[in-house]
Amino acid sequence: VKWISGERGCHRAGVSNSGSVMMRADWTEERSRPAIAHLLAPRSVAIVGASSDPRRIGGRPVHYYRQAGFAGRIYPINPNRDEIQGYQAYPTIESVPGPIDLAVIAIPAAQVAAAIEQCARKSAKAAVVFSAGFAEIGPQGTVLQREVLAVASRYGVRLLGPNCLGLFNARIGHFATFSSFPESGLPLPGRVGLVTQSGAYGTHVLMQARARRIGVNIWVSTGNEVDLDVATLIEALAGDADTDVIACYLEGVRHGPTLLRALGAAHAARKPVILMKVGRSAVGAEAAASHTASLAGSDAVFEAALGSYGVERVETTERFLDLTYAASRARLPRGNRLGIVTISGGAGVLMADVAEAEGLEVPPMPIAAQRRLLAANPLGSPRNPVDVTGQALNNIDLVRQHVAAVFEDATYDCAVGFFTAWPAVSTLGPKLQSALREGTQGRAERPMALVILAPPDIAQAYEADGFLVFEDPSRAIAALGGMVRLSVRLNAQPRRPPPARATAPLLPQRPLSEVEAKLLLSRAGINLLPERLVGSAEAARDAAAALGCPVAMKIVSSEIAHKTEIGAVVLDVASPDAAAAAFGQLIAALARAAPHAQTEGILVSPMVKDGVEVILAAKNDGVFGPVTMVGIGGIFVEILKDVVLRVGAVDADEAQRMLKELKGYALLAGTRGRPAADLDAAAEAIAAFSAYALANAGRFESIEINPLVVRPRGHGAVALDAWIVPAMPAGGGSNQA
Amino acid sequence: VKWISGERGCHRAGVSNSGSVMMRADWTEERSRPAIAHLLAPRSVAIVGASSDPRRIGGRPVHYYRQAGFAGRIYPINPNRDEIQGYQAYPTIESVPGPIDLAVIAIPAAQVAAAIEQCARKSAKAAVVFSAGFAEIGPQGTVLQREVLAVASRYGVRLLGPNCLGLFNARIGHFATFSSFPESGLPLPGRVGLVTQSGAYGTHVLMQARARRIGVNIWVSTGNEVDLDVATLIEALAGDADTDVIACYLEGVRHGPTLLRALGAAHAARKPVILMKVGRSAVGAEAAASHTASLAGSDAVFEAALGSYGVERVETTERFLDLTYAASRARLPRGNRLGIVTISGGAGVLMADVAEAEGLEVPPMPIAAQRRLLAANPLGSPRNPVDVTGQALNNIDLVRQHVAAVFEDATYDCAVGFFTAWPAVSTLGPKLQSALREGTQGRAERPMALVILAPPDIAQAYEADGFLVFEDPSRAIAALGGMVRLSVRLNAQPRRPPPARATAPLLPQRPLSEVEAKLLLSRAGINLLPERLVGSAEAARDAAAALGCPVAMKIVSSEIAHKTEIGAVVLDVASPDAAAAAFGQLIAALARAAPHAQTEGILVSPMVKDGVEVILAAKNDGVFGPVTMVGIGGIFVEILKDVVLRVGAVDADEAQRMLKELKGYALLAGTRGRPAADLDAAAEAIAAFSAYALANAGRFESIEINPLVVRPRGHGAVALDAWIVPAMPAGGGSNQA
Repeated sequence: VKWISGERGCHRAGVSNSGSVMMRADWTEERSRPAIAHLLAPRSVAIVGASSDPRRIGGRPVHYYRQAGFAGRIYPINPNRDEIQGYQAYPTIESVPGPIDLAVIAIPAAQVAAAIEQCARKSAKAAVVFSAGFAEIGPQGTVLQREVLAVASRYGVRLLGPNCLGLFNARIGHFATFSSFPESGLPLPGRVGLVTQSGAYGTHVLMQARARRIGVNIWVSTGNEVDLDVATLIEALAGDADTDVIACYLEGVRHGPTLLRALGAAHAARKPVILMKVGRSAVGAEAAASHTASLAGSDAVFEAALGSYGVERVETTERFLDLTYAASRARLPRGNRLGIVTISGGAGVLMADVAEAEGLEVPPMPIAAQRRLLAANPLGSPRNPVDVTGQALNNIDLVRQHVAAVFEDATYDCAVGFFTAWPAVSTLGPKLQSALREGTQGRAERPMALVILAPPDIAQAYEADGFLVFEDPSRAIAALGGMVRLSVRLNAQPRRPPPARATAPLLPQRPLSEVEAKLLLSRAGINLLPERLVGSAEAARDAAAALGCPVAMKIVSSEIAHKTEIGAVVLDVASPDAAAAAFGQLIAALARAAPHAQTEGILVSPMVKDGVEVILAAKNDGVFGPVTMVGIGGIFVEILKDVVLRVGAVDADEAQRMLKELKGYALLAGTRGRPAADLDAAAEAIAAFSAYALANAGRFESIEINPLVVRPRGHGAVALDAWIVPAMPAGGGSNQA
Repeated sequence: VKWISGERGCHRAGVSNSGSVMMRADWTEERSRPAIAHLLAPRSVAIVGASSDPRRIGGRPVHYYRQAGFAGRIYPINPNRDEIQGYQAYPTIESVPGPIDLAVIAIPAAQVAAAIEQCARKSAKAAVVFSAGFAEIGPQGTVLQREVLAVASRYGVRLLGPNCLGLFNARIGHFATFSSFPESGLPLPGRVGLVTQSGAYGTHVLMQARARRIGVNIWVSTGNEVDLDVATLIEALAGDADTDVIACYLEGVRHGPTLLRALGAAHAARKPVILMKVGRSAVGAEAAASHTASLAGSDAVFEAALGSYGVERVETTERFLDLTYAASRARLPRGNRLGIVTISGGAGVLMADVAEAEGLEVPPMPIAAQRRLLAANPLGSPRNPVDVTGQALNNIDLVRQHVAAVFEDATYDCAVGFFTAWPAVSTLGPKLQSALREGTQGRAERPMALVILAPPDIAQAYEADGFLVFEDPSRAIAALGGMVRLSVRLNAQPRRPPPARATAPLLPQRPLSEVEAKLLLSRAGINLLPERLVGSAEAARDAAAALGCPVAMKIVSSEIAHKTEIGAVVLDVASPDAAAAAFGQLIAALARAAPHAQTEGILVSPMVKDGVEVILAAKNDGVFGPVTMVGIGGIFVEILKDVVLRVGAVDADEAQRMLKELKGYALLAGTRGRPAADLDAAAEAIAAFSAYALANAGRFESIEINPLVVRPRGHGAVALDAWIVPAMPAGGGSNQA
């Protein structure tokens, strides 16, 4: 699907013939070209507020288009000039002779809406708005921003920005940006697409990417995201035939489902997504929210939402660049087995440590290979890490032999080699390079990273041989670890939402009692104890007799929060008579502690003494909608915050995976004398719970079952207590899909 | 204490006068100079096996001494040459005219012992042995190594190596090394001492240190450490007046107490130690042990041992270099409050995130300062992160104002500034530099790191103004985090061993029953329940009556491991009669399950139902000696591995700190309805336990109390069960201090 034209030739043909008619013909033929293609690969660009000064905001894109040799039409709009930086200028948008694919707008905020309208009348389907002074400065800017969006929507113009640094598509010399980056040279050729919410930081990353020899072909800074957001652009890059790797810097997500759809598209296209999202910390989240005027959402929910896509989230810019570098230059490993070749034992140990931390295995070499290598190099260590030692200085062929042994034995999915500054030593470098090239012949499907200290030209020579080049061993291993994780995720199917199930009626939008909440959850498929609400001592006696003793008894009242503290709960009631007595005791406690509280009665239920207590909770995330949380009750949730989240509904298989991710899973699986819990029943309850939450998206603040007692295998799982807080009319949770 | 001479002048004086007599005079006067001074700052060096080829192992040090202009005497020893690389050569060690301070030995392993003996006869007090072929190659090498050590010991010669790359002291041009590092240029001047167990990796680090503009004055590679080890050299650097920062790369520790003494010396001298120890992972530890032929020890124990010294352990070479760079160029911050100034909101968010992860606070600016800055820069964010925004491009003075505000308000202990590639922009860079210089005037005691992309000469200009320079924001913050941690530790007193306490008799070296173990621990100060060992049903009835019911009863036999499983434990025995019955039941169970087991009787003890179960355990670490572990029983230890370690004995205060470090501490402190436990009693028990373990260093395999029930505050802590496994005569644990 190559709907973004990457061939300069096409454009050149249009221009080499006589101008606007030809362009118009193209336009007519491609009426169905999506607006985003106009943004990423326009054939004609109007620059509104164009400047003759190549250092000014309105002058930079003109300068860059000229430098890059953009083959489409450039229409600088400036009422005071006939010519701008070598291009014919036009006094008004109306005066442009042909159609406009893309409007680049660099004029004061108050004039932007009108300019968009005029460009739309010249057929523009997309606009890049550099101008600041919109939502990011407060209420009056927000009004202007709404106006701009309204005009754009009316004319079907897609907007990038406002308050953004624009974009470039280096393949076609399209530089609709005022980022300072292109001033210091064009990007290197390559197949990486980079989308960033921060223009300044995105520029910083671009500079470092070029220094790291990463070729970024498309770069987009999304600014205020009044229309096109990071998600839309990821989806566009997923469909771009000239992009292999998608890198993304995020501060906040506007709409979770759109992002997930985009990640799904990238997954389907088998394109890894390397994603850096800041705002994890409290101070950071606050700063991000004020900086981008976006919803903060929960970072934990964001992380959970990524789970099943081909995405690696990284925390530092170095990792962001390292993994982008590796993924854009080498194939993803098939598995996680790492061969380590080193000329320093110390570096070997260091790399083995990092490998473990990154989830890579360092399995020993086959015994036969070890024997062969020991015979050739008695002072070496052929196990893995494979230590050639300084002996290689005397006989560089040892490097070839050891590296070849690692690749021949097909034990390893990827490899790393530590050769410090040897490549830069004139007497040694060329011999080392040959040895490595020969040792790895025919192994292109298995990536090998080299850790070397060498000037760029030498490093590039190794890259030309297919090696990944790093200066730091930890970073090399971390990048391989990221590659393996991407490989695993891209080879798995992303999680699909389970088929909708018939569930309980929609939540009413009014306060619910515990009994009502349980009734709803029961109709949603959650098992409850056979409990009874009673209003007299007699009824309590009958209930205890019917349910079988011992029973638990408690006051049901939505006005009493901490029941245990006021004596509103009695456990282990041993007989029907004791139940009758307990009724009186509870009524007395209520009269003492909360004489005016409304109560629905006393709930009598069988005691459950076995099982593991699990907590289920659902919240409406502002960005991703209903989220289900599972934790193990008591210490694990309270002290260790040991919880697992999923966005949307899960099926029973996924619910089992959630349970397995808990740190306290061993408690459920059964350990040292504890019986295994009924995991199937627990999973079924989680699935039903999450389906109910999703069906009620936007209608609740929180739904909680605490505890769900998961009894020993074969005995099921029952909810002992539940609360539902419906969303009140004025409340949140209204921005769901 | 400047016992390593750092002045070239002294040496030059010796040489500019007429030669050997002068040197001999010096020698006589300084007979008391310690051997390590001969190693680090020799006045005369014999190079045994010197070569005319500057690329050979025996030729390199000669070449480097010549290049560096070493002012002392160089005596190349080579029977075939009169002159080597411009120095007069000597056919034998005997023929050297003057005394020899230091012997550098580059001849085959079998000849090393004899060479050391000959050098010793010429007064050498230290020798650097490059030669390989010793313990690292197996048993026959180990024999040679012992021989070398025996000769050296006999003559009082201290040895560096064998199988090491040597050392340098750049201040005096002393380059007793065949590392390839000096080939590419001399080290930069500076006050960092770097000790490394890996020569090759140590060389790699040196190359990167120079690229990072870190001045390493002393570098030592310790190789097989037959005599001088990393610890000795850290201690030497702690006493060297020209070294401010000690950096150390470790693979294995030979003797824990020596290392701790060295770290104590560095702490006393207020010199930060930046330490990288590899071998954390299973594969890594195995590779390290085989590579260095050192004891593996436990990495967790190593980490615990560092706890109270001025040491920061880092995991990657980048962090190692970053923190060494920062600590050698800036003062340590007084506290952990960080001010963030940025021209990119995105970078500000990113840095706030890293700050939280590094334990740095990012407190908001004082309101008055925020108001003032907002007035000057309405589009900025003055809260912290302080975002100047791109507005600084129009008015660079905004940078001065914002930075000055951060430093004026005295709220912050350190600061970071993000200015991307601005310093490298010719129209902007000089103005930015002035703004930063003016904004930070008079703040030298508070470090500020700048994140900039600039060529080395520009970066150096900022360094000359006192700024730390980084390219990556995460690394900048991580380095500041490391500085803060070093500052906190250096300002605290290192933990001192508590005064020895009278404790129980030494452990017998034979198997002990549970009753014997408890008795010993009781005499060591651990509280037990008032329990009774009984041999009849009658005695059981009496015991239950005397102790008060309910009681617990169990079979005491060292031959039965899993008592619960065979029914050898009865809990909650409600009356004296029931105790008599339970006696019969236990005897029957024993007869069924283990008819031939030796038993000491049945133990009757009161039931304890309240309290939190804590586990105490002591092991003999092969490197550091007795180590005490504390954990919370059940899930926490079994599933979460939530344990805290200390090396040696702890006092009650330290024991309280151990408890506070547990993830499950909240259980002890009391949470939601749980009473606070008797922490004082628990701490006293831990102190007594650790003192007993230390007193029995080498005499046990393990000592364990499981559980120690820590009852509610005021009710004490009692050991319910205990096991001691004494060290058997042939067993381990013999290499204690």
